[in-house]
Amino acid sequence: MDVMQSLIRECRSGIPDMVRAGAAAEGIDPAALARAVAAGRVVIPVNPRRTAPPCPIGEGCRVRVNVNVGTSGILCDEGLEVEKAKAALACGADTLMDLSTAGDLRNLRKRILTLPAPVGTVPVYEAVRRAGSAADVDADCLFRVIRDHCHDGVDFLTLHCGVNREALEALKADPRIMGVVSRGGAFHLAMMVQRGEENPLSAEFEYLLEILADEGVVISLGDGMRPGALVDAERLAKTTEYLTVGRLAKRAMAAGVQRMIEGPGHIPLGQIGHNILTIKEVTDHAPLYLLGPLVTDLAPGYDHVVAAIGGAVACMHGADFLCMVSPSEHLALPRIEDIVEGTRVTKIAAHIGDTMRRPQALWEPRERAMAEARRALDWERQFTCALYADPARKIHARDGDLDTCSMCGELCAVKMIRELFEKEGTAGKE
Amino acid sequence: MDVMQSLIRECRSGIPDMVRAGAAAEGIDPAALARAVAAGRVVIPVNPRRTAPPCPIGEGCRVRVNVNVGTSGILCDEGLEVEKAKAALACGADTLMDLSTAGDLRNLRKRILTLPAPVGTVPVYEAVRRAGSAADVDADCLFRVIRDHCHDGVDFLTLHCGVNREALEALKADPRIMGVVSRGGAFHLAMMVQRGEENPLSAEFEYLLEILADEGVVISLGDGMRPGALVDAERLAKTTEYLTVGRLAKRAMAAGVQRMIEGPGHIPLGQIGHNILTIKEVTDHAPLYLLGPLVTDLAPGYDHVVAAIGGAVACMHGADFLCMVSPSEHLALPRIEDIVEGTRVTKIAAHIGDTMRRPQALWEPRERAMAEARRALDWERQFTCALYADPARKIHARDGDLDTCSMCGELCAVKMIRELFEKEGTAGKE
Repeated sequence: MDVMQSLIRECRSGIPDMVRAGAAAEGIDPAALARAVAAGRVVIPVNPRRTAPPCPIGEGCRVRVNVNVGTSGILCDEGLEVEKAKAALACGADTLMDLSTAGDLRNLRKRILTLPAPVGTVPVYEAVRRAGSAADVDADCLFRVIRDHCHDGVDFLTLHCGVNREALEALKADPRIMGVVSRGGAFHLAMMVQRGEENPLSAEFEYLLEILADEGVVISLGDGMRPGALVDAERLAKTTEYLTVGRLAKRAMAAGVQRMIEGPGHIPLGQIGHNILTIKEVTDHAPLYLLGPLVTDLAPGYDHVVAAIGGAVACMHGADFLCMVSPSEHLALPRIEDIVEGTRVTKIAAHIGDTMRRPQALWEPRERAMAEARRALDWERQFTCALYADPARKIHARDGDLDTCSMCGELCAVKMIRELFEKEGTAGKE
Repeated sequence: MDVMQSLIRECRSGIPDMVRAGAAAEGIDPAALARAVAAGRVVIPVNPRRTAPPCPIGEGCRVRVNVNVGTSGILCDEGLEVEKAKAALACGADTLMDLSTAGDLRNLRKRILTLPAPVGTVPVYEAVRRAGSAADVDADCLFRVIRDHCHDGVDFLTLHCGVNREALEALKADPRIMGVVSRGGAFHLAMMVQRGEENPLSAEFEYLLEILADEGVVISLGDGMRPGALVDAERLAKTTEYLTVGRLAKRAMAAGVQRMIEGPGHIPLGQIGHNILTIKEVTDHAPLYLLGPLVTDLAPGYDHVVAAIGGAVACMHGADFLCMVSPSEHLALPRIEDIVEGTRVTKIAAHIGDTMRRPQALWEPRERAMAEARRALDWERQFTCALYADPARKIHARDGDLDTCSMCGELCAVKMIRELFEKEGTAGKE
């Protein structure tokens, strides 16, 4: 397993093939991408045991979208989770995470790993399952699961290394209404409190890095202390974890392990900027992966929209990777239609993020093509330019095959102005 | 008609009853609200001929949401438009605009004016209808319609006074792909070009102010030059109109006429800040009413989400009033379900805007109540705290009457942590 363990080092001296392929897919300069990987500002999660398409995540790259799938104790239908994963990819999801907690975990993981995208997991879920309860998970059990996931071909692992004694003390010193809302974070706290031990991912972080370096797997430093409510956003546990994660991010780089960072959570819109900038600062600008941020708690059923607002703004400040939030967030395990709606809305937020982050030449042509199609009232061309043609076509078609749309009919401003300027001999066009 | 024409002046010397009522509804200090009205930083659109509930719009007030309804030449069902207006109010819309262009315009307007909210119109639509075409609309016709709308009880009028020769020259000098996408703006340009005359709303602005002062009706200075595509956002016509509108806003204040400003349009997320701040600066911080901004053109069918992202960010920078955008924007006249979806999503953006603009004491208690309900896993209380209970209840109920939710089941982090800290004797709670 020599190929991946050294991707960071290889990028210091040249441009590996995987980086060339990733750069081509991104439309960016391969040498710049190699420098960004070498500096830890971009990760490319590809387990060398399988061949997921290279999906660079970080500075200069498109904002990527991950979609979570997975069984729960209440709804456990492996076939359905595979269908959800396929539906997500059909909507343009860039990566998948399998967060299953019930059923034949390994079998489902292997099925999801056959799909053409980088796949992530949260090994502590399976450790709890194997041990029977969080209190029964010891370091051996946890590291065994981590190794198994690497061997199965998982490309990135969410590991809650920042949930340590210091974080627990911060949580007690400055309590929060929602306590801890990260499932992985909660498992680790339960292990720590009930066993009276430090989190093994923290205590044996160097050993963890050895495994990941051997396996060429990316670590995603989980945000077990992310606030679970707007009113919890300014409590100490969150920033304590930022600092811990920042130290661990440096150690991962030193060990040649690609790492990214997971960030909040539930925070008010006005606090996104300094949170993102703080995380970027303390982690030497590691790629940042966000769930949300959710910028209000008052809109269950519409959390996909709330997360899109928070996510787009987070991208303004440097977030790189958005986790899909579905309309069923906080309410239920998503159904396929929730996955589709959530993925579309998150991808729209990611594209809006791209308009902030990427050179104009990389996003403007498609926006320009849409404007030209609209000017021409060429509906098929509009649908081709659209991120999602089907919902647009369906709405437009419902009132018949119209030249304009049923909003304005003959009073269409675009049509009026086009005709007016054509009559006058002045092209209102570049 | 003495009551309203002097609201600005009355506020200079005291606190009119309407301002007291508005302040009570906002939870703000009546004297501060009176000062803001006197300074033109807040408007209260109430036609003295009817008794719409006072809805202050501007600095220090909640972000308000307007919903447009109205017939078109293709879909003309007056009863349906009244139903849409009622559905919008049921979703929390603060104001309504009747943008009808077909059917019995006056009859429909009068029906909408029976509803308990401020109502706005765009008189030039009816002027074109009466005259037969834009080219046949003269100043007399237009001012007659304006007076009729005032007499019918309309509370605010969108008038495209900034669409003048200067704007037309800017449009020609620095053309745009989409030309002009404002229907009212297009009518005025057609009048100007085809009649070879200045826009009467610009040429006879003082006369217009006399009518509005007499009638106590708010002017909403329309943005006929708003860009209709991201790639048109930096063209000259837009900023030329800002400057014109800024001058007119000062003249309106001098005449004691309450005024607000309408703003863009289609602009990239990163350009919202300076656009909002420029408009606020040149208009002496007049209340700002936005359609969008739409921050990508690639998401027809999801423009409600795109507008929510743009609108929430605009509120960060000072926008006061958001116009609902529905999923059918750019595609079709909205149906009732589009109005419901669009209004909910726009209201969510407005609430997120409030978290940026308003003192914490005015928005935090409900967020806190939701966090406490979530901690308690008290679903009914969560639905009560939610902006929209029904969609949330429907999603949660679909997997049965569960204590937790079907996402995590017994592995619910909130439950685990609550039990863990209770066992340990440490309340993870403030």
